[in-house]
Amino acid sequence: MHPDQPVFLRACRSLPVERVPVWFMRQAGRSLPEFRALRGTSSVLDAIARPELAAELTLQPVRRYGVDAAILFSDIVTPLAAIGVGVDVVAGRGPVVSRPFRSASDIARLRVPDAAGDLAHVAEAARIVAAELGDAVPLIGFCGGPFTLACYLVEGGASRDFRRTKALMWEEPDLWSQLTRALADIAVEFLQVQVAAGARAVQIFDSWAGLLAPAAYAAHVLPAAGRIFDGLAASGVPRIHFGVGTGEILPLMAAAGADVVGVDWRVPLAGARQRLGTGIAVQGNLDPVACLAPWPVVAAEATAVLDDAGDEPGHIFNLGHGVLPETDPGILAEIVGLVHERRSRDA
Amino acid sequence: MHPDQPVFLRACRSLPVERVPVWFMRQAGRSLPEFRALRGTSSVLDAIARPELAAELTLQPVRRYGVDAAILFSDIVTPLAAIGVGVDVVAGRGPVVSRPFRSASDIARLRVPDAAGDLAHVAEAARIVAAELGDAVPLIGFCGGPFTLACYLVEGGASRDFRRTKALMWEEPDLWSQLTRALADIAVEFLQVQVAAGARAVQIFDSWAGLLAPAAYAAHVLPAAGRIFDGLAASGVPRIHFGVGTGEILPLMAAAGADVVGVDWRVPLAGARQRLGTGIAVQGNLDPVACLAPWPVVAAEATAVLDDAGDEPGHIFNLGHGVLPETDPGILAEIVGLVHERRSRDA
Repeated sequence: MHPDQPVFLRACRSLPVERVPVWFMRQAGRSLPEFRALRGTSSVLDAIARPELAAELTLQPVRRYGVDAAILFSDIVTPLAAIGVGVDVVAGRGPVVSRPFRSASDIARLRVPDAAGDLAHVAEAARIVAAELGDAVPLIGFCGGPFTLACYLVEGGASRDFRRTKALMWEEPDLWSQLTRALADIAVEFLQVQVAAGARAVQIFDSWAGLLAPAAYAAHVLPAAGRIFDGLAASGVPRIHFGVGTGEILPLMAAAGADVVGVDWRVPLAGARQRLGTGIAVQGNLDPVACLAPWPVVAAEATAVLDDAGDEPGHIFNLGHGVLPETDPGILAEIVGLVHERRSRDA
Repeated sequence: MHPDQPVFLRACRSLPVERVPVWFMRQAGRSLPEFRALRGTSSVLDAIARPELAAELTLQPVRRYGVDAAILFSDIVTPLAAIGVGVDVVAGRGPVVSRPFRSASDIARLRVPDAAGDLAHVAEAARIVAAELGDAVPLIGFCGGPFTLACYLVEGGASRDFRRTKALMWEEPDLWSQLTRALADIAVEFLQVQVAAGARAVQIFDSWAGLLAPAAYAAHVLPAAGRIFDGLAASGVPRIHFGVGTGEILPLMAAAGADVVGVDWRVPLAGARQRLGTGIAVQGNLDPVACLAPWPVVAAEATAVLDDAGDEPGHIFNLGHGVLPETDPGILAEIVGLVHERRSRDA
């Protein structure tokens, strides 16, 4: 990798950087007034279906904050919607699947999307963003992980504990394996389309994987997660793996094939690095709720994250989960400044 | 402690036992047909207000399952209701506080309950249960922890991330400290009344404390948690400290003064024991959702918990969180049998 590659890509590879790169999960979101103005009341999936709108929503936070990466405006269920699984994203409720996944006969509904047809709008949005950003700021491709996609499909919507999903996993392990394998194949195609259109890294959001104990994750999710990471290996782009509440499964999330593991706010980054070992970068992990506090508190908490990550290469600053809608964009801008001012000692 | 003390109390003290004791959080709950028949559609707080009903609900699972401990039928918000904080528990929604805690003027609403007046019904229920159980099966007193009580008070109800609560914690640390100190004093009185009436152990449910990173827990919750444990020290009963998603704060939960730390299903018990060190017992930690699977799956998962806890003294078998309402009571009975049949090698 060329030494003048953007800092974000070098940090993903655990290479030395002159400053810590920073971006925010859900930086393209309702916390931004320009996002609310442009999105209006259209549904997420409608916005994603319009490439120029999706591209503009992706670019807004890059312009405002000067973050080191863009992430394609998308949703966990985008690839499911693209193949005609009846799914909507309802404000305040999350994804709602009209006919939840119940039995082997539902596997046939999970075909691999067609790059030129089903995913043309996704490719077009990524192309517009990549052309606009040029070399300086990489675009990250976005995809849901196998457990989280299965959660929405099986449960039919959001849930505190996704008990129906986990029950299926334990009761019908063969069907579960077929389901997560099909979801992995969908994810690979979805991400490859984004990479072909200009994404220079990918993040797999297996947001709810932390609901599983390590043994359950290893037996029932890791094979499908590994299939996604393997499927992206030839692309050569760094691969980020993220979920919340994943303290106990961090090493397994790396073992799936990740270059970077996203860590939620609960796990101090020094401890995460210990669990992950060398060669795996960490991303995170300021508590999104801390961003609602006055600036001196936020500054102290953000500095604690930087201190905790230490000066070794391989840290990408981020929140520990997505930006909350009520977050003041001014606070996020201040965080970018704070992170950028702090120079890494090894560069 | 006398060697013929019940196994549950000996395990709490990390003393050798001839078999692993077992009980289930929310064993007195909607999973039991006799519970549903007796409770009917009355609200939780109404049932708690009727000592004979609360006692009977507490005793039902002991009779059915032969568990090694009873836990007083109660709710996190019981002591708040007892002092006239307007609070209701709404089916499917959880606690709802009519006037949430917002400012220093609300501190005055949090007086310490009066044992003979406000808590007479709680004492009476505990007395009935203790008299019925005799020496063989100890009653566990029940109380919410300071963070979780503050969550419901500040937020006014359930929430995924209790962002308003955490924002108050960061924005107004002095007010937060007063609030959690007041809640600790309420908790101490609430538990002392239960112990005086016959409870032989106590469990502090700080269910949502795992939403905090270790540094935030140490700064903002540990002082109040320690105040509760200190306040109970003279009682001489074992003190259990439980929350979900607490993998990173387990040592802090022990440092509060616990004899036993309850561990959710995410953290393998061998790892929990390592983090806690010797002399602290562990309680847990079968995934409650696993109990919805067919018996061979449940048996394998329960055996894995026992294997993981190992043969050293100081393990109380439980679920990693409360029994789900749709759980088959037959499965829980089978689990009790499985745990009881497995004899500890050191006894």
